[in-house]
Amino acid sequence: MTAYSSVYVPERPGMRDLGRLLISCPDRPGIVATVTGYLFRSGATITESQQYTTDPNAGRFFLRLEFVLPELERKLADLEHGFTDMAEAFGMEWRFTRAARIKRLAIMVSKADHALQELLWRRKTGDLRAEISMVISNHPDLAETVHGWGLPFHHIPVSAETKAEAEEKQLNLLADDVDTVVLARYMQVLSPDFLSRFPNQAINIHHSFLPAFVGANPYAAAEQRGVKLIGATAHYVTADLDAGPIIEQDVCRVDHRHSVADLRRSGRYVERAVLARAVSWHVEDRVIVHDNKTIVFA
Amino acid sequence: MTAYSSVYVPERPGMRDLGRLLISCPDRPGIVATVTGYLFRSGATITESQQYTTDPNAGRFFLRLEFVLPELERKLADLEHGFTDMAEAFGMEWRFTRAARIKRLAIMVSKADHALQELLWRRKTGDLRAEISMVISNHPDLAETVHGWGLPFHHIPVSAETKAEAEEKQLNLLADDVDTVVLARYMQVLSPDFLSRFPNQAINIHHSFLPAFVGANPYAAAEQRGVKLIGATAHYVTADLDAGPIIEQDVCRVDHRHSVADLRRSGRYVERAVLARAVSWHVEDRVIVHDNKTIVFA
Amino acid sequence: MTAYSSVYVPERPGMRDLGRLLISCPDRPGIVATVTGYLFRSGATITESQQYTTDPNAGRFFLRLEFVLPELERKLADLEHGFTDMAEAFGMEWRFTRAARIKRLAIMVSKADHALQELLWRRKTGDLRAEISMVISNHPDLAETVHGWGLPFHHIPVSAETKAEAEEKQLNLLADDVDTVVLARYMQVLSPDFLSRFPNQAINIHHSFLPAFVGANPYAAAEQRGVKLIGATAHYVTADLDAGPIIEQDVCRVDHRHSVADLRRSGRYVERAVLARAVSWHVEDRVIVHDNKTIVFA
Amino acid sequence: MTAYSSVYVPERPGMRDLGRLLISCPDRPGIVATVTGYLFRSGATITESQQYTTDPNAGRFFLRLEFVLPELERKLADLEHGFTDMAEAFGMEWRFTRAARIKRLAIMVSKADHALQELLWRRKTGDLRAEISMVISNHPDLAETVHGWGLPFHHIPVSAETKAEAEEKQLNLLADDVDTVVLARYMQVLSPDFLSRFPNQAINIHHSFLPAFVGANPYAAAEQRGVKLIGATAHYVTADLDAGPIIEQDVCRVDHRHSVADLRRSGRYVERAVLARAVSWHVEDRVIVHDNKTIVFA
Repeated sequence: MTAYSSVYVPERPGMRDLGRLLISCPDRPGIVATVTGYLFRSGATITESQQYTTDPNAGRFFLRLEFVLPELERKLADLEHGFTDMAEAFGMEWRFTRAARIKRLAIMVSKADHALQELLWRRKTGDLRAEISMVISNHPDLAETVHGWGLPFHHIPVSAETKAEAEEKQLNLLADDVDTVVLARYMQVLSPDFLSRFPNQAINIHHSFLPAFVGANPYAAAEQRGVKLIGATAHYVTADLDAGPIIEQDVCRVDHRHSVADLRRSGRYVERAVLARAVSWHVEDRVIVHDNKTIVFA
Repeated sequence: MTAYSSVYVPERPGMRDLGRLLISCPDRPGIVATVTGYLFRSGATITESQQYTTDPNAGRFFLRLEFVLPELERKLADLEHGFTDMAEAFGMEWRFTRAARIKRLAIMVSKADHALQELLWRRKTGDLRAEISMVISNHPDLAETVHGWGLPFHHIPVSAETKAEAEEKQLNLLADDVDTVVLARYMQVLSPDFLSRFPNQAINIHHSFLPAFVGANPYAAAEQRGVKLIGATAHYVTADLDAGPIIEQDVCRVDHRHSVADLRRSGRYVERAVLARAVSWHVEDRVIVHDNKTIVFA
Repeated sequence: MTAYSSVYVPERPGMRDLGRLLISCPDRPGIVATVTGYLFRSGATITESQQYTTDPNAGRFFLRLEFVLPELERKLADLEHGFTDMAEAFGMEWRFTRAARIKRLAIMVSKADHALQELLWRRKTGDLRAEISMVISNHPDLAETVHGWGLPFHHIPVSAETKAEAEEKQLNLLADDVDTVVLARYMQVLSPDFLSRFPNQAINIHHSFLPAFVGANPYAAAEQRGVKLIGATAHYVTADLDAGPIIEQDVCRVDHRHSVADLRRSGRYVERAVLARAVSWHVEDRVIVHDNKTIVFA
Repeated sequence: MTAYSSVYVPERPGMRDLGRLLISCPDRPGIVATVTGYLFRSGATITESQQYTTDPNAGRFFLRLEFVLPELERKLADLEHGFTDMAEAFGMEWRFTRAARIKRLAIMVSKADHALQELLWRRKTGDLRAEISMVISNHPDLAETVHGWGLPFHHIPVSAETKAEAEEKQLNLLADDVDTVVLARYMQVLSPDFLSRFPNQAINIHHSFLPAFVGANPYAAAEQRGVKLIGATAHYVTADLDAGPIIEQDVCRVDHRHSVADLRRSGRYVERAVLARAVSWHVEDRVIVHDNKTIVFA
């Protein structure tokens, strides 16, 4: 992207040859035996396995495997090729990924820095196994913060009149370098057209326990209702505002003393933790979307 | 009420002479000094004190004091009489209560026993400092359970046609013996007329994290939305369904594996804990309602 | 056992033919493929699968499978027979169990009833999928409680002089009817000889967050140290006091206001929840002991 | 201190005239009435009040008041002077503080940055109402991080031979500019002599749930014992290692999959949160030490 983008993500031992296989298909006997048999014959050692079925009789089956296969990068095309017939026979949606092919994120923010700082710090420590390609904001305020972490910052103002044009600029930046867009308190609604470019690849943090307090100013609404807990929700963004598949939620306790400003301050700690967990699971291919809900193999 | 009602609630040391004073008034300087000075001159020792103001300038002020005054029962009328002028000068709403005058509850249930069992067990251990005068149900199922705890059980069936008549029967039972009505998963909506008899004295447990999933079948709605936490809410019942002042809320973590039945099973543990805490605070005069919200001096 | 023992545990759909396979062996490639291939050929459908390896290179591998096999009861001996050679080749420790063969518990208590009540209630609701064969106590206090739930209660007093004799009586009662012993606040130390009869089959609840506050009076020690959280620990009992494999732990928040008695009261809610979870996992064959630690496939 | 030290801490409305009064004395009737009467006559408005007694009969009484008094800075000496006789009559230990007189911290670190980053970020947002005068480390690693936040960093290496000399250098730096020392994962033991300069003014974060896992390598010990929760403890440092008064503790859930390295990674999130809360309470004069325990008026 620029000189900035030489982000270092530390490797886990063996991560170079670590592969993942995600499968979704109609449930029926023999799937696991067939798939694990194939991997065994291909020389792979399974290190992690999780599965879920909506119903053993005629439901939908989901499987996530991690495996080590020496020289994975070189062998991957063959591995995929050899899997095709089997996959077709079972009616599978499937994909292999390599852990070493680290996902590239663009983070979009407005003025609040808490979720951004958390993601930047977790990337540096390796808890978030992703590259951060750039930060895009509709305000200039966080430029210095982002540069302090050695990353590119793009200021693209947005107004009602310039929105289409601004999104075009954003899409040009994201074009061929970014896998996933993270809305880390980005206070603009993205167009359906923009979002269609990132199906189940755009993650937002909403500052309430959805579906409570959909829309703007959830903390003011929470204060008005007198709730005893406030929450945050990380979800994939869809054209339907605040209604996309929920990846993660958490809450913290509040009481009658909390003003709207106090709720907002307290809420930041929940927001940053919830978003960081959701993004981590996403970049490690632990989230499967089905029927506007998520299966999280955490 | 009957031979049943000789419920034993163990006394804390000194509880016989333990008094409480609750005050709500426009905030202005000198309230605490005046009130505590009066109690001191009356021979009382303050053992607990909590206060809250919505705004030190022109807000509303709330105060809860616990104090020990030897021979409180005999002296209470004088204590109240002596307080009247001061209270009027400050524009106070106020009340003294004696801890030894234990509140009497009626519990209303349908078929589920978890919240009921918890209240009965906590009453026995003394964690819930209340008498339970009776249990009323629109179903006969829990009669044996209630009798097992040595308490009276009244079965009053309710249908669309008989609702008014049933409520009259209920009110007759509650007439002069009950301070507070606890709806421990009572699956009928009470009429505004019934509720007007128990202003801020009827507590319901709703099986969701309000204001999410108002109304019937919240667990089915939660499963449909794919939330990652489910909750429960204890609130005072008002004529506006599920919209009364919230006393307490809590949540537990769930995931994609939870069916609606699993959510319902898991939710019971949150429901019973939330309701029990709310009722405990209520019977110890720790909850003040203001502006459809609660101040809980826990 | 007696007329008492006709305990009803509700069945999940399909539970009649639900089987479990637990395996522990040196890790090496091909285990999952081999095992699932065998189950598939045997006509079983896998419904749940969890695995763990201490180290993919030369570590130890653990696997738990749940599967449905029509007419499991009739076919189980054949299933086990057919598995033997394979198991030997991999050096496996293994066992098949049938979910419908519900485990039988004896609960041992002293005077406190909270953990006992919770287990009894969870058994009734089916959240604890076990039979409770009997309750044994060194005090008579809880006889009525236990009889109220329709279960046999055995009072066996224990003193320093009578301990050996008492344990013999206990063992006679447990003899051929009980799989697992649950110490639900039983305040006597069991002899190594007694415990040798229930290897990884006796579960205790200790009223602290182990290894903090080993031994007697943990709440007094916690108050003395001024901790801000108190905890409870469910563990398998070994001859080494409070040092057996930990199954589950949890905590609750306390503060400077809590006396020792308050800690004891608050702690009961953590104790009962921690013990109930541990026992549930145990009776569903979700706990594997390795190296004085537990692997919990929850 | 240097050009660095122009740290900005945002003001709450009215914080300029916000005062605090902390009192500890033998309990007896009339304390609150006397103290609040005095403040009222002095023109102060009480905005927050918390009290605790170890025993209403002959125990020790603790009180924390926040109040607004116009022109507090100018009037403080008079306020203190007028309070002296009363305080003597009741045998009080007491102090008035001004919220606007923000406490100055020195943070001591080694190589880990998580607790440091959290304190720096919270200071910037105003959630931590303190100035950070400097960061001192026995390693050079975090120099750039600290400079990035615009703060002075002092590298003072420590070895067995140079320890006394190093502490002298540290004390010279701290001399007249620092109220409180925060050990944010500083991996050296401070001498009793050093600590005697900061009685109840040096806060450490220990990476275990004390008193479990006292001393070095608590995560290795936790992994060895197979605990299901790991914790962190913020405490005042005393000459007795890991045995000082506990200010705050918290835990997070772990399971059999966590290696020692995983525990260490997970634990950082608990450590930083626990330390930040403890330091916040400390700098707002919310912590009173009594009998090697803390009373926290949070």
